[in-house]
Amino acid sequence: MVITARPSYSRIKTALTAIQKNEELELQLVLTGSALLNRYGNVDNFIEQDGFTINEKVFMVLEGGNLTTMAKSTGLGVIELSNVFYNLKPDIVVVIADRFETLAVSIAAAYQNIPVAHIQGGEITGNIDEKVRHANTKLADVHFVSSENARARVIRLGEDPDYVFNTGCPSIDLAAEVLQAPQLNFDVFEKYGGVGETFDFSHGYLVVMQHPVTTEYKDAAKQIQETLHAMYEMQMPVFWFWPNADAGADGMSHGIRAFREKYPLPFIHFFKNMRPEDFLKLLFNAKCLVGNSSAGIRECAFLGTPVVNIGSRQEGREKANNVADVNYDREQIKQAIHFWLHNARPDSSAIYGAGNAGVQIADVLQTVPLRYHKKINF
Amino acid sequence: MVITARPSYSRIKTALTAIQKNEELELQLVLTGSALLNRYGNVDNFIEQDGFTINEKVFMVLEGGNLTTMAKSTGLGVIELSNVFYNLKPDIVVVIADRFETLAVSIAAAYQNIPVAHIQGGEITGNIDEKVRHANTKLADVHFVSSENARARVIRLGEDPDYVFNTGCPSIDLAAEVLQAPQLNFDVFEKYGGVGETFDFSHGYLVVMQHPVTTEYKDAAKQIQETLHAMYEMQMPVFWFWPNADAGADGMSHGIRAFREKYPLPFIHFFKNMRPEDFLKLLFNAKCLVGNSSAGIRECAFLGTPVVNIGSRQEGREKANNVADVNYDREQIKQAIHFWLHNARPDSSAIYGAGNAGVQIADVLQTVPLRYHKKINF
Amino acid sequence: MVITARPSYSRIKTALTAIQKNEELELQLVLTGSALLNRYGNVDNFIEQDGFTINEKVFMVLEGGNLTTMAKSTGLGVIELSNVFYNLKPDIVVVIADRFETLAVSIAAAYQNIPVAHIQGGEITGNIDEKVRHANTKLADVHFVSSENARARVIRLGEDPDYVFNTGCPSIDLAAEVLQAPQLNFDVFEKYGGVGETFDFSHGYLVVMQHPVTTEYKDAAKQIQETLHAMYEMQMPVFWFWPNADAGADGMSHGIRAFREKYPLPFIHFFKNMRPEDFLKLLFNAKCLVGNSSAGIRECAFLGTPVVNIGSRQEGREKANNVADVNYDREQIKQAIHFWLHNARPDSSAIYGAGNAGVQIADVLQTVPLRYHKKINF
Amino acid sequence: MVITARPSYSRIKTALTAIQKNEELELQLVLTGSALLNRYGNVDNFIEQDGFTINEKVFMVLEGGNLTTMAKSTGLGVIELSNVFYNLKPDIVVVIADRFETLAVSIAAAYQNIPVAHIQGGEITGNIDEKVRHANTKLADVHFVSSENARARVIRLGEDPDYVFNTGCPSIDLAAEVLQAPQLNFDVFEKYGGVGETFDFSHGYLVVMQHPVTTEYKDAAKQIQETLHAMYEMQMPVFWFWPNADAGADGMSHGIRAFREKYPLPFIHFFKNMRPEDFLKLLFNAKCLVGNSSAGIRECAFLGTPVVNIGSRQEGREKANNVADVNYDREQIKQAIHFWLHNARPDSSAIYGAGNAGVQIADVLQTVPLRYHKKINF
Repeated sequence: MVITARPSYSRIKTALTAIQKNEELELQLVLTGSALLNRYGNVDNFIEQDGFTINEKVFMVLEGGNLTTMAKSTGLGVIELSNVFYNLKPDIVVVIADRFETLAVSIAAAYQNIPVAHIQGGEITGNIDEKVRHANTKLADVHFVSSENARARVIRLGEDPDYVFNTGCPSIDLAAEVLQAPQLNFDVFEKYGGVGETFDFSHGYLVVMQHPVTTEYKDAAKQIQETLHAMYEMQMPVFWFWPNADAGADGMSHGIRAFREKYPLPFIHFFKNMRPEDFLKLLFNAKCLVGNSSAGIRECAFLGTPVVNIGSRQEGREKANNVADVNYDREQIKQAIHFWLHNARPDSSAIYGAGNAGVQIADVLQTVPLRYHKKINF
Repeated sequence: MVITARPSYSRIKTALTAIQKNEELELQLVLTGSALLNRYGNVDNFIEQDGFTINEKVFMVLEGGNLTTMAKSTGLGVIELSNVFYNLKPDIVVVIADRFETLAVSIAAAYQNIPVAHIQGGEITGNIDEKVRHANTKLADVHFVSSENARARVIRLGEDPDYVFNTGCPSIDLAAEVLQAPQLNFDVFEKYGGVGETFDFSHGYLVVMQHPVTTEYKDAAKQIQETLHAMYEMQMPVFWFWPNADAGADGMSHGIRAFREKYPLPFIHFFKNMRPEDFLKLLFNAKCLVGNSSAGIRECAFLGTPVVNIGSRQEGREKANNVADVNYDREQIKQAIHFWLHNARPDSSAIYGAGNAGVQIADVLQTVPLRYHKKINF
Repeated sequence: MVITARPSYSRIKTALTAIQKNEELELQLVLTGSALLNRYGNVDNFIEQDGFTINEKVFMVLEGGNLTTMAKSTGLGVIELSNVFYNLKPDIVVVIADRFETLAVSIAAAYQNIPVAHIQGGEITGNIDEKVRHANTKLADVHFVSSENARARVIRLGEDPDYVFNTGCPSIDLAAEVLQAPQLNFDVFEKYGGVGETFDFSHGYLVVMQHPVTTEYKDAAKQIQETLHAMYEMQMPVFWFWPNADAGADGMSHGIRAFREKYPLPFIHFFKNMRPEDFLKLLFNAKCLVGNSSAGIRECAFLGTPVVNIGSRQEGREKANNVADVNYDREQIKQAIHFWLHNARPDSSAIYGAGNAGVQIADVLQTVPLRYHKKINF
Repeated sequence: MVITARPSYSRIKTALTAIQKNEELELQLVLTGSALLNRYGNVDNFIEQDGFTINEKVFMVLEGGNLTTMAKSTGLGVIELSNVFYNLKPDIVVVIADRFETLAVSIAAAYQNIPVAHIQGGEITGNIDEKVRHANTKLADVHFVSSENARARVIRLGEDPDYVFNTGCPSIDLAAEVLQAPQLNFDVFEKYGGVGETFDFSHGYLVVMQHPVTTEYKDAAKQIQETLHAMYEMQMPVFWFWPNADAGADGMSHGIRAFREKYPLPFIHFFKNMRPEDFLKLLFNAKCLVGNSSAGIRECAFLGTPVVNIGSRQEGREKANNVADVNYDREQIKQAIHFWLHNARPDSSAIYGAGNAGVQIADVLQTVPLRYHKKINF
């Protein structure tokens, strides 16, 4: 199991737990990519606190935050992970979703005749994620998808239906657990520090999570400023999560810092990262999630949290009725937030799973015949 | 246009010529992978003699000839080619077929938002080539395929039909040219040197070209010895081409050398490489091609040259009636050769193209709208 | 000429100019390492504005800011620069000083039998710079040193005296030029933006430039906080330059941000970078430079600017009488600043050169016999 | 302890044994470089048969056998070994001698503040080995040298005399052991296979071991052919060892193969590798060692075996009176062999050690204070 980024861990945590509990399976964990960078929150600490052992840590991300360094980081990842798999000799490698560095995982495994299981294939987004996701599907031997539509697409891509399993998305598992006791039972400021002033948010708050879009990375600073202006004009309490390491991240960070120099933002508090359970509680109790995070599309569908989804990053994804799509436009953003503030909370939706994906994944991993040889079936 | 291996150049030569002739297009040529290694024949000399300029040469192949070094070579290729494309700034990158290192080309281009054109997608073979080929398809924006079946498959893989062009395989172009004057009008021994004794082959000869199969690379030495035994027992003149750089190459080379130590082979002459035209003439005039080269499936279909195709490497490919499939078994190999020696030569077949692929590719490259953003269309 | 870091450019600028003016020499410029990272200021813009052409830009710095990523960045640099030199085919490569990535330059050149000229050998500092500097000397064929003591040491290290030239340090050339008209003839805030409030500094100001020490990188946050506390207690106008990319940089940045959250710092303005001439003017007119920058030891010696040199980074360097050494201790730092505020400005010193190094370097490069083969001479 | 090449293992074996026996020390073994390549003999099998555990195997050698791939292999080695050391966390890393890839070991360790011990510093050869060796010295903290002259030189290079230990060369230890029972008590052909006919060598034989010289790599094929001609004209039994992986290796292999095609060589048998003890016995009983191997300078000095040392590779090394230097010239080679055939065997010399280097190295490693911080002491 290779974890390459901050959100991947929370996505996959219940599967890790189920694998670890399964006596027939042995879990090996490799941490790499942005998951290792302090700048993006110490995921390794969270993982070890949760009782998992990290077998290898591999630095592979180049500085620069542009398209060239994204590509080169992936190349470096192939080299490093080839070594790691050569030495760990796993029976199967699990690769998650569609970030650029995940292709390094698939290549390092597939080229060494190690079966590859891919989670979250068959979805549609556009931009480089779209290419990476489907290339992962074509390099993978076993597929764990999140919806019936996704399963149909993976099969249409020529994969053997016997190896395509709609387990739902493991990220929903955690949301299902959290729904048992969704109260915000911790002090956000004290537990996570972060940057910015503290404030009273008992009358409602927003969460912002907006990542750079790699095909539009030159506009990153401009895009984030529309959101900042909207927040500035709303003057509501906001918990803001720092963007991830994609091309455009530097532009975005710079945009945020420049804005803060000009406009006082005492009602915004910035975080790098949060324990997944706590993050889901924060989402559940929010008036609205703003930005372009896939958590808005997936976890919030199950939680019933309203979402203002900005721009093109989630284009093509199946969406439940908790999502309002808007452009990079402060007015549209504000209007959509107002809509959610004055309307009823949407119902919980199971389009991305029913909450038992982790256990299903572990079961399949235990029983599926291992093979690394396949042919298109049409 | 990135050339990564010895056979890729002859495959693509007519397209290069057509691009160079097209005044609207500018050709940039990058040579890498095994195409640069002396051990596999100086492709760069041939290319420059043919009047093309090589813009960059990039060493990326690790020694070792095993699966791990194949993967690491690919990673190194991603790093290097990212740099090369960053500096050359091509409008589109053309990647050829399905060898392991071709994914390095696709990734380096796609991740930098450079459109990718892929040649020879939509075919079926099995083993790692199968995974690499279809992953290339999913990273590519424009597709040049070799047959109607291949076109149908690429479209079923979710690609936009407007961007999938059945040009036929450019390798057939050269075969079509050669068919105009197919006489063996050069002295094979004098022109290409090679290793082994010279002999009279005016009463007929065989050509052998057998590469390692990466999923069976541990059996490479054993597999090649069956072919060697068959040749030894046939005692017919043989022109034997050295295997390529895949995992198993070392085993195969070692197998050949060990055999030569034990058995005198005065009727076999070994070559590393040959100018494509000369190679096709040699094939046309041969009694039979023996081995697992894709030239047997493609060029020989058009030339009408009989083929004894050994083992699994070409499994799943469409084949014309010039191909007899056999196992790694000296008896089967001998029987199939005898069959061809005593039966009529098969007719020429156009299943892989009619001989004008190069011109069609150049035409499409000139007119196709460039884009690097796509979505699965189902 | 390979430039790997922000300060290297200003160090070497007069040599670049002299090389470009010399009709017998052709200048090729490669920009890499932290010199390419926006985070550390756009050196490439400055360079191009100064009329130089950058032949290649090579991204090679891994994120992480720790010792492992420093080492891996160097390895990546060797790979990339080998390619670059293979393609550019320089007659000689000039490598500057002793940062970790400079060994990548020396190796890529020396291993390809390209002569290496090294600037600033023979000095003493301790920590990894010390090892890197002398290893560079042993890989280099021509040596441009900054002082007579340095020349003596390079010769004692076994180098041929005919190839060791005391040109003085080219950084002093620029200081000599600036001394002709050292007035602060630009608006610091307007021209360089930066972060923090603007203020009146007509009654005197300090400049702070403090980099992480790689052998003490875990203490980076703590070390910088002593300086921050000293500044906070002084309440004088401060121009603060952001630390460089060494191991510890993340800790240091984090230390600065955390401090700013707690303590209002309206009298400090942060910059990433500045044109070298402007930076020297800023230094000349400062009451004192605080930190551990080598500019304090070299340029400030010539400018006669007082320096409070903190910690071990410049240990072992020859120092003129403009330098007061202190520990990482807010009290010592404040005392040393007070001393300089109440005592006469030191005289200009020429221990690091007389201001004509660039021209001397170009002259030697034109006339020195090129060789890449040497033997220790004892 | 990092072993990068075939001969390094035999050089260091007694030190490995002594470290393993020392209860205060824990041995970690990393195998990399050409030591891993089948083409150069399976060193890993020998090592494991000798009872050592290999902790990591790292592929890092690029194909191409030219200067550019030597440099790039070193860069890849830095990347890979940085990872390995990051995970193994050794207290000290031992690097051996002066091959190009050894700088990768020193950098990966030194940059991560891991103390480096260097074996065989302070010697003189010329060419890239010379640069690499002394650069290793400057990156190392502890020095194990082979002679008093070498010790004096390392100290003159600025190293602290307390950290420079003349232990003699560990390669001599094995020679000393072998001298106890130097009979050729095994069947050379049966035990080692190899390539070429078998023959009677009871009336005396020669051993040839000639490596490419990296600064003359373009002449590699021509150089080896002089030796081949000399052997062909001598018509004496010869055991010939295959050249190592340096730039020029491909040229050399090709030169040997081409020669064999033209001239029958039934009196030459080719080997890739041999167990060190057996190799030393073979050397002891030989009439003469021919080529440019350092074994001729070191082990043969102790064994009293005559040597015909060809060309520049060992230039500058201290030599005992068992060595006759000649040029790449078949006549000079033959004359020197004739001289040794008709003169008395030279006496054993201890200039490279007395046979207890391994134990001394282990003792020092146990007791020397570990540090990674040093300064030139003049």
